[in-house]
Order: sequence, then C-alpha cells, then structure tokens
Amino acid sequence: MKYDVGLTYIGRIRSELKELDQCPKQGYEGAPVAWVEIEPMYHDALSGIKPGAKIVILTWLDQADRTVLKVHPRHNPRNPLTGVFHTRSPARPNPIGLHEVRVIRVGDGGVLVVEPMEALDLTPVLDIKISLPVKK
Amino acid sequence: MKYDVGLTYIGRIRSELKELDQCPKQGYEGAPVAWVEIEPMYHDALSGIKPGAKIVILTWLDQADRTVLKVHPRHNPRNPLTGVFHTRSPARPNPIGLHEVRVIRVGDGGVLVVEPMEALDLTPVLDIKISLPVKK
Repeated sequence: MKYDVGLTYIGRIRSELKELDQCPKQGYEGAPVAWVEIEPMYHDALSGIKPGAKIVILTWLDQADRTVLKVHPRHNPRNPLTGVFHTRSPARPNPIGLHEVRVIRVGDGGVLVVEPMEALDLTPVLDIKISLPVKK
Repeated sequence: MKYDVGLTYIGRIRSELKELDQCPKQGYEGAPVAWVEIEPMYHDALSGIKPGAKIVILTWLDQADRTVLKVHPRHNPRNPLTGVFHTRSPARPNPIGLHEVRVIRVGDGGVLVVEPMEALDLTPVLDIKISLPVKK
C-alpha cells in the first residue's frame, strides 16, 4: 500500500482575530466573518460552492499543545478534568479544528467569505466539505 | 514558531466492512456498528465518554486519491463534475473523513463501540470530539 500521510495546507484563514484571547471558544459564540484564501492549485476543487452554502472547514490549529490528554473544559477550573476526546479543546494529539460555517460570498481568486469563524488569522486550512443534512 | 504538522494515528476502526464497494457513501445510509480501538498512550483522552454520547470521529481515508479536484458526486456520471470541496467524496487533497456517530458502549482497553460508521476496517483514526448542540 502506498503510504502518504503528510498534510497539505490548502489555504489560510484571514481574520480580524489576531490573538488567541480574542477568539470565541465556539463559532456560534459571536465569532466574526473570515476570509478563506485557497491556494491557486486547489481552486478547481471549489467549483459549485455558492453563497448560502453550509460547509465544514477543517483547520490545523498550529498553536495547540499536542501533548495534553485531559483539560478543564472551557478553561474553567470548576469543570472537572475531562479527556480531550470528550471536548472541543484545541489541545489534542492531532489539533484539527472543525468549523461549521455559512458562505456569504465567493470572491475572485479562490476566496470564500464565511461566518462565523473562531479561528485565528493565518490558521492553516486542511479541507472543506459540504455539510450533511441535519438528522431529525 | 514550533512547526509540528505530522499526523499521529490515535487508533483504528474495526468493522465488518472489508472492501470499499461494501461501504455506504454516508453513515446514515445503513452503515453498521464499528469498534474504535484507541492506542494505549491516548486512553486518558477518552475519559468522560459514555454510552449515548454523540461524537465526531475524524479518520484518515488512506485509500483515497489525493490528486483529484473534481468528481461526479456519488460516482454518478449524471451528476455534473463538482469541486471536491463541495462534496463529501473521500478524494481530496487531505483525505480526512468526518463521521458523526453515537457511542453504544465503552469497552475495556480503549474501545468505543459506535454506529453508524461507513469507514473500512483498519481505517486510521485521527481525532474524536464531542458533537456540538444542533443549531435551531
């Protein structure tokens, strides 16, 4: 079997969020609009994405501590220590961020304007998928 | 800045699905129960996960073609060629699978029994997160 497990950065988040302490913990907690700038070699993979689309963006949270296995959820010491796999903490062995957003505009040159996006400016982007229909 | 972008396999899917053509395209299309076997060094990160929990599992779809930028959705030639970022195709630059599942049982030794799981037997697992509440 061919083995090819390296990640490729397909783009970057551009955002007004420049420091971690500005970032809401979840997108729906007041996160702003952001620009997703996709590398030219992947522009064809955007075809079909239109304003109004609900998409999932996967990012690489490159400032996260990959050695942490338990956290106090929401950085609140009153919350008991919990395994990171039972949280949404950025701290985890593979710090992949998962963001459900709405496309506001599809710009020229491989730019998607989306909201809400709680990731820092310059966060690397790994993948984009359409959202699945919500189960009843 | 420290640069550390290698993926770590935190575990593997064990499933009755042994061939790609047995796999439903989406979990909700009749995918079976599967076992998620987590490596011993990450068992602490599972703490707090209980039966009934809704979790998101991220996998590495190691048989996917990473060079494909457009596909006919659902392998149906009647569907127009569409950018992979507007699909859920496994073919994409970083073939990360996203699976929303329910935990049926938490076994000994870092095993989660979950359903529905459309991934092949032995698919590497990258991450587990709790699901966010569904937005109204």
